[in-house]
Amino acid sequence: MAPAIPHIGDLPSGRRDAITDVAGVTVGHATLAEGDVQTGVTVVCAHGGDPYQQRVPAGVAVLNGFGKSVGLLQVEELGVLETPIALTNTFSVPAVAQAQIRECIALNPECGRSLPTVNPLVFECNDGFLNDIQRMVVREEHYLQARAAAGEAVAQGSVGAGRGMSSFALKGGIGTASRRVSAPGAGLHTVGALVLANYGLLPHLRIAGHAVGARLATQLAAPAAPPEAEKGSIIMLLATDAALDARQLRRLAQRAGAGLARTGSFLGHGSGDIALAFSTAYTVPHRREQPMPEVALLHDSLLDGLFQAAADSVEQAILHALWRARAVTGRDGHVRPALAELLRDWPHDTLAKLRDIPA
Amino acid sequence: MAPAIPHIGDLPSGRRDAITDVAGVTVGHATLAEGDVQTGVTVVCAHGGDPYQQRVPAGVAVLNGFGKSVGLLQVEELGVLETPIALTNTFSVPAVAQAQIRECIALNPECGRSLPTVNPLVFECNDGFLNDIQRMVVREEHYLQARAAAGEAVAQGSVGAGRGMSSFALKGGIGTASRRVSAPGAGLHTVGALVLANYGLLPHLRIAGHAVGARLATQLAAPAAPPEAEKGSIIMLLATDAALDARQLRRLAQRAGAGLARTGSFLGHGSGDIALAFSTAYTVPHRREQPMPEVALLHDSLLDGLFQAAADSVEQAILHALWRARAVTGRDGHVRPALAELLRDWPHDTLAKLRDIPA
Amino acid sequence: MAPAIPHIGDLPSGRRDAITDVAGVTVGHATLAEGDVQTGVTVVCAHGGDPYQQRVPAGVAVLNGFGKSVGLLQVEELGVLETPIALTNTFSVPAVAQAQIRECIALNPECGRSLPTVNPLVFECNDGFLNDIQRMVVREEHYLQARAAAGEAVAQGSVGAGRGMSSFALKGGIGTASRRVSAPGAGLHTVGALVLANYGLLPHLRIAGHAVGARLATQLAAPAAPPEAEKGSIIMLLATDAALDARQLRRLAQRAGAGLARTGSFLGHGSGDIALAFSTAYTVPHRREQPMPEVALLHDSLLDGLFQAAADSVEQAILHALWRARAVTGRDGHVRPALAELLRDWPHDTLAKLRDIPA
Amino acid sequence: MAPAIPHIGDLPSGRRDAITDVAGVTVGHATLAEGDVQTGVTVVCAHGGDPYQQRVPAGVAVLNGFGKSVGLLQVEELGVLETPIALTNTFSVPAVAQAQIRECIALNPECGRSLPTVNPLVFECNDGFLNDIQRMVVREEHYLQARAAAGEAVAQGSVGAGRGMSSFALKGGIGTASRRVSAPGAGLHTVGALVLANYGLLPHLRIAGHAVGARLATQLAAPAAPPEAEKGSIIMLLATDAALDARQLRRLAQRAGAGLARTGSFLGHGSGDIALAFSTAYTVPHRREQPMPEVALLHDSLLDGLFQAAADSVEQAILHALWRARAVTGRDGHVRPALAELLRDWPHDTLAKLRDIPA
Repeated sequence: MAPAIPHIGDLPSGRRDAITDVAGVTVGHATLAEGDVQTGVTVVCAHGGDPYQQRVPAGVAVLNGFGKSVGLLQVEELGVLETPIALTNTFSVPAVAQAQIRECIALNPECGRSLPTVNPLVFECNDGFLNDIQRMVVREEHYLQARAAAGEAVAQGSVGAGRGMSSFALKGGIGTASRRVSAPGAGLHTVGALVLANYGLLPHLRIAGHAVGARLATQLAAPAAPPEAEKGSIIMLLATDAALDARQLRRLAQRAGAGLARTGSFLGHGSGDIALAFSTAYTVPHRREQPMPEVALLHDSLLDGLFQAAADSVEQAILHALWRARAVTGRDGHVRPALAELLRDWPHDTLAKLRDIPA
Repeated sequence: MAPAIPHIGDLPSGRRDAITDVAGVTVGHATLAEGDVQTGVTVVCAHGGDPYQQRVPAGVAVLNGFGKSVGLLQVEELGVLETPIALTNTFSVPAVAQAQIRECIALNPECGRSLPTVNPLVFECNDGFLNDIQRMVVREEHYLQARAAAGEAVAQGSVGAGRGMSSFALKGGIGTASRRVSAPGAGLHTVGALVLANYGLLPHLRIAGHAVGARLATQLAAPAAPPEAEKGSIIMLLATDAALDARQLRRLAQRAGAGLARTGSFLGHGSGDIALAFSTAYTVPHRREQPMPEVALLHDSLLDGLFQAAADSVEQAILHALWRARAVTGRDGHVRPALAELLRDWPHDTLAKLRDIPA
Repeated sequence: MAPAIPHIGDLPSGRRDAITDVAGVTVGHATLAEGDVQTGVTVVCAHGGDPYQQRVPAGVAVLNGFGKSVGLLQVEELGVLETPIALTNTFSVPAVAQAQIRECIALNPECGRSLPTVNPLVFECNDGFLNDIQRMVVREEHYLQARAAAGEAVAQGSVGAGRGMSSFALKGGIGTASRRVSAPGAGLHTVGALVLANYGLLPHLRIAGHAVGARLATQLAAPAAPPEAEKGSIIMLLATDAALDARQLRRLAQRAGAGLARTGSFLGHGSGDIALAFSTAYTVPHRREQPMPEVALLHDSLLDGLFQAAADSVEQAILHALWRARAVTGRDGHVRPALAELLRDWPHDTLAKLRDIPA
Repeated sequence: MAPAIPHIGDLPSGRRDAITDVAGVTVGHATLAEGDVQTGVTVVCAHGGDPYQQRVPAGVAVLNGFGKSVGLLQVEELGVLETPIALTNTFSVPAVAQAQIRECIALNPECGRSLPTVNPLVFECNDGFLNDIQRMVVREEHYLQARAAAGEAVAQGSVGAGRGMSSFALKGGIGTASRRVSAPGAGLHTVGALVLANYGLLPHLRIAGHAVGARLATQLAAPAAPPEAEKGSIIMLLATDAALDARQLRRLAQRAGAGLARTGSFLGHGSGDIALAFSTAYTVPHRREQPMPEVALLHDSLLDGLFQAAADSVEQAILHALWRARAVTGRDGHVRPALAELLRDWPHDTLAKLRDIPA
């Protein structure tokens, strides 16, 4: 029986240990898996309404800007989202962006005419090892399919945009987690993370601080793949129900990097490492005629709990992505093994025991 | 006979007074003009080779990030371009980005596989007043058409991506200009600008400092269009043959804002005002096996001439865009008049005389 | 009789045409003027209380970071001010920063112990042409003197931190102005500007768009000083009573650059051009035990009036600095003439007439 | 016999395992330790010449801008250093900045006159728990003393600016380390780190991935200090002999955050976490008359080794700071214990054994 997934940190997780523990948030996938095509689309919705009309505040932290995600320029200027957050492979960003534009026009027929244009928000990683990325098979319908599938239960691992992703030369993909924070004066808040994990060199992998990757690299007599430079990336999304503004959310997003680093990333040159955080505590109306929300923000000095929750939930979400991914065989017979398979013969309490430092 | 276009500043222009005065730079357009469709694509190439293999250094200045341009994230991180620079309307960004991806794959069949993915670079303004932007008629072929048309002669005004653009409630679009700079110790350099002008409120328009817009606003008994908020944008591209690195090019791009401000812009909320500068003095090879160029950069304290050239050539390019644009009737019969038409009956020396301050 | 100072733009100014038209804002100077010492300190207070306890929101725009101002790092992270805003010469920044630290400790005896340290906020320009800057004569007492002198009436020109500053080879220094903005749905707001002007090359000076500098450069048979590269800078402070957050205030500050550019600046390499904007609409308590303010921010799409006011009031404040400065003779007999003196023999209506474009 | 300090990562350290393994770099301290005064100054010099005349390229990464360090604004704009790098306590920044100004004037008598002013570069952390920071005892002489003491041997722990610093409720302070990197095509390079560690909550401390802090928190029946929020900070300096430009050095500095995160930091709200990296491979002359260096930069795709070295050497330097610090009793009898003391009775191989994951 394989080791259990360790719980990261001392904060409790929410009911689902998922980004959807933040009330209103939903996640949907469309998965394309056939032969050389191993890819997909994942969508994260901040609420059930029209995101162009009711905008959630958001902030971005670009840890390493080697990436082709679109929409961040305007998020940094205006501090709000106008669409769901979409994730897909690098070469399918245009198709998904176009789908978001069409969806917004369908809901807001004057968009681009008397109304401003909409800002597509599409994140990406390169799944070209397992997926024939050059075929660009993702189309509008897959975005809409992911949208339609959005719900509170979140499938993880080799699904949606995560279908073809690799991490630490293992199968990576979608992972999610959440943490609950209660601080005197700050109330009770939830922070949720969802990652698209496609980064990392196996010997560097650390699980709850332990050098599991170095051990696995030895264990794998014939390595799953020849050693490659980082051509990956990770997208880290954070949601919270705490009342934060764009500046504070940028600060929250920055802490995703701490969770990422603990797993063994040093922000490789070719790894586009980007975090975005949004709040569901209030929305900003598109129409200026509607009243602006009266918001009492959380005091910055009360952010530490949320910061820890951001780091811990990102680290946990990465572990979930690795642990829940199933092995995938893709383009040209390329294979990425599943971490859970590799650990299957490890004693159940291996990692738990490591946690205890003998006096 | 209408007034002549004033020459901005005291630096001489290059032979063509165009961005193509920077040796190697070419510009091409594809124009779509039929009824409600008034739009297009413009391409600026830094050199004649494969831009993915031989990368020019570049820097970005985001003056107002209300915009949907793609590719800037990676330019800011890596400081180089990997594709030609494309301009189009807001909703056609995905189509043009996809065309750039396909073009790169055609030249580099391992792109996205053993080679990293390519970073599309597409700038946009919203031409929705004259163009039925929701139809998204721009396709890959139009990008390739603009690419194929690229040369040293630059058509200006209502062409290419500028076909449907408005500026100061007049017809805007593509403008270009150049300045030559000679400073002791700095050698002789050229700075070229190309703008996609789609911004501005008529009463604010200033030509060579003079409040021509206020005068025109009075002259136009029935205003060409009901007063609208700024939903425009301006893209300002700068090229130079001076040896600058990405940091210095970001500084150069920042000075585009000075030229813009002199024409009457206050960087309106809804106007995505973005500048990018690149140098043709050297290229950075994609392949690490190739030797890196040995570059002696221009000393920062010698940049003032280039900075002035950047501001002046951007201001001049905007004037060219306005002056050379022809009136266009587009979507739903919307019309934008041509500045040159409106000035036709002004005495030839009006602006020249204004330049002289009587003692 | 010299020409009147033109009114910039079409927005009305406040009662004093000063930053103190924003209710609660006060300004004080300490001026040191004796022989080779021509310098001083200027202080801008956002309100009459303890700024460490009641923090106003603020945002920064660094147009050209060739500067030694201190405190911006934390303003960008936390979005609030903790001290009055101080201005002085470059080499006196440490003395004034120390004075701010001491002042804060005096009011908050636990500062740096059980309370966090305070963030001094001191802006600077180099007045070394007129002032023997190497003597560093500014001391804590001068900061306190400026603080004690703070009031609603604002002396301008060659006073306070402006005492030794030069602009366009003329006497520069302190200038201030304000604009009132009324937009449907946005209410009535005031934007005030205060500048420390120490930048610019004479031939580039433009007054209300007119090339007055080129004319003056000719008029001055023996130029006041040999042509020098820009070693100046300009600090531009903006205050508003509109309810904006740090992100919006950064956007407002960015528009100061438009006003600056219209006067003839191209952001010279050696000119540290920095803007900071703050709002008096609410304060953020230092103590987390105090309730956070419930703020309904102004909708971003209603910012255009404020943006125009920012650009116009900065341009106006620069004109005030030039117009109201008196000639100063300083270090080694260096002289900077007063603009008003140079214009004395110009017909009163010169600039007014230029405004009208003959049909 | 206490556990040995673990070696972080798989890269070898340089001869001294110190930042001074980068040829030319020297470090000096001035320590003030008497009763309530427990503070000091540390200086890092990039080379033995005049830093104002021969400027090393540098880049900055602000991980959390809750800090009062001065000089970063200009480093970000111009990409070079003009002074040695100084570190001290928060309230002594002005005194040290003034000392740097005076030092520069002494070497360059026209500084601030016909030459531009100099940009002081002073980093800080708040040592107010152990040091009576309000007394501001640091003076110019202490900066000069640290300068004069600069050499290749680096004292660590409770010395210089580190004298009064706390980390993880333990004694923190100065730590240094280095790593050597050899990559095909990239040559052999050294990366050195020096940290001023003053951050962290004890239960979060991780040593080489192991939760040593949680164990220590239990071990300490009476905690060394009541639980406090993070009021700390960490300054992380990186030096390298690889030929990098300012953009690449900013990227290198960003990786310091990975090393920091692995030790248990989540970038607490009140912790000013800042990294600066510089290269000794070439210098940029102040005087434009001198020829600019012809530099062939390292290809960005060869940076991964340096990035790993940056992360590893920062983590290692933090461990050195903790391990080599001696316990200090300071202001009001406050005490910070030494980690090495606390670990004294742990078996020598505790941490080594933990490294091995049993199969």
